[in-house]
Amino acid sequence: MTFAGGDLSQDAFLCGRLVLWQPLQGYRAATDPVLLAAACPAEPGQSVLDLGCGAGAAALCLGARVPGLVLAGLELQAGYADLARRNATANGQAMQVEEGDLSHMPRPLRVDFDHVIANPPYYPKGGTPSPRKARATAMQVETPLADWVQAAARRLRPGGWLTMIFGADGLPEVLGTLGSRLGSATVLPLAARQGRAASRVILRARKGGRAPFRLLAPFVIHNGAAHDGDRESYTPRANEVLRHAAPLSAEFD
Amino acid sequence: MTFAGGDLSQDAFLCGRLVLWQPLQGYRAATDPVLLAAACPAEPGQSVLDLGCGAGAAALCLGARVPGLVLAGLELQAGYADLARRNATANGQAMQVEEGDLSHMPRPLRVDFDHVIANPPYYPKGGTPSPRKARATAMQVETPLADWVQAAARRLRPGGWLTMIFGADGLPEVLGTLGSRLGSATVLPLAARQGRAASRVILRARKGGRAPFRLLAPFVIHNGAAHDGDRESYTPRANEVLRHAAPLSAEFD
Repeated sequence: MTFAGGDLSQDAFLCGRLVLWQPLQGYRAATDPVLLAAACPAEPGQSVLDLGCGAGAAALCLGARVPGLVLAGLELQAGYADLARRNATANGQAMQVEEGDLSHMPRPLRVDFDHVIANPPYYPKGGTPSPRKARATAMQVETPLADWVQAAARRLRPGGWLTMIFGADGLPEVLGTLGSRLGSATVLPLAARQGRAASRVILRARKGGRAPFRLLAPFVIHNGAAHDGDRESYTPRANEVLRHAAPLSAEFD
Repeated sequence: MTFAGGDLSQDAFLCGRLVLWQPLQGYRAATDPVLLAAACPAEPGQSVLDLGCGAGAAALCLGARVPGLVLAGLELQAGYADLARRNATANGQAMQVEEGDLSHMPRPLRVDFDHVIANPPYYPKGGTPSPRKARATAMQVETPLADWVQAAARRLRPGGWLTMIFGADGLPEVLGTLGSRLGSATVLPLAARQGRAASRVILRARKGGRAPFRLLAPFVIHNGAAHDGDRESYTPRANEVLRHAAPLSAEFD
């Protein structure tokens, strides 16, 4: 499946530093890939593999912030892989995108990376499946989170970092899968508003890391107690990260 | 080892609703057992087992809040078990305290409980051991957190609740041990101050529970950015819980 022009919209990220073609129907990147990119501690010249890269939002946000990265992506669906290649080119970035599955990593990606980032498809419990196949494939948790963690651990060099964003309800599965291969894990809870339970979390873990696990203070996205209905409700820090490409480094330090 | 009078102090909890003999040297209950008791959803008439009950602080705080509980405790060290019995009597509560180890549960405690509570001894990484044996035994993590979770799961009736307080660095081990026996897990992070990483967490999980995992907003203990040096720095909610025996029910609901 590929996307034709009429099925696509062109969307701005990071206040227009990045412009991405995305399907009108199906998975459309919003704040998650931007937060994921902000949490990845990649430095110029390092290599980054985006597992399940979709249309490339997370990897290309990261590339827009950190110069000189070597970007690669794995994507199951041909249509999204095509879009990711097209979006990389349109934004003046180089990104090697391979079609394939986590459990059968394409040969060109079987190398050691400095960083792996992942925004696994999320299918909230109790929701109803979308009638559209692309959306259903992208949104359903067909692959357990544990498999994403294990695939990432295999692709990291010793000392390399996994950065992953996922629903808070996946925390027991993910933390239970770190095992002895990934350590120095830190979790940043993401809360829609102050005082709310975490809806999503960002995990950072290091291959071979041995520092104690840390549970950070929540990162709060919106001001106030109810949604104002416009984008101005971002907290000052969320505004810096989501619009001005600030890294989430102060939070993780 | 038993404690003689000169080795003991008498300390007030919950604004004096509970007065406990505690050893001057060795593990001394502070806020953790009070928070643990506040988080346990026990109802009048139910049974509660306190694993590693020490001098009885958590179980007796719970008994002071909820009338008509059937309280039991397991304690490794004879001196603390004696103190727990004495403290129960002195506070007009009935509590069956047995000496023994998690891995060899004394026969009288091999029954099904509605609730298990636990405040496992905590030995922060990088700390130095105390020269005093009682303190060293109480503070070192000689028994992995996973063993506490498994012992609790064995002692709970189907639908019964485990409530446990432990260092945030133990979260991967604890969440990785829940497996299929304990579910509907909820974690309440405890933060010394707003915006700080969690130092401790309270876990609630249900035997056979199937609800999704939840990561709650942190419970903040102190106001402001630095410790004022007196007890008045508690947040209003911490004040209600630590001094006036309010349950942590709004937080977990």
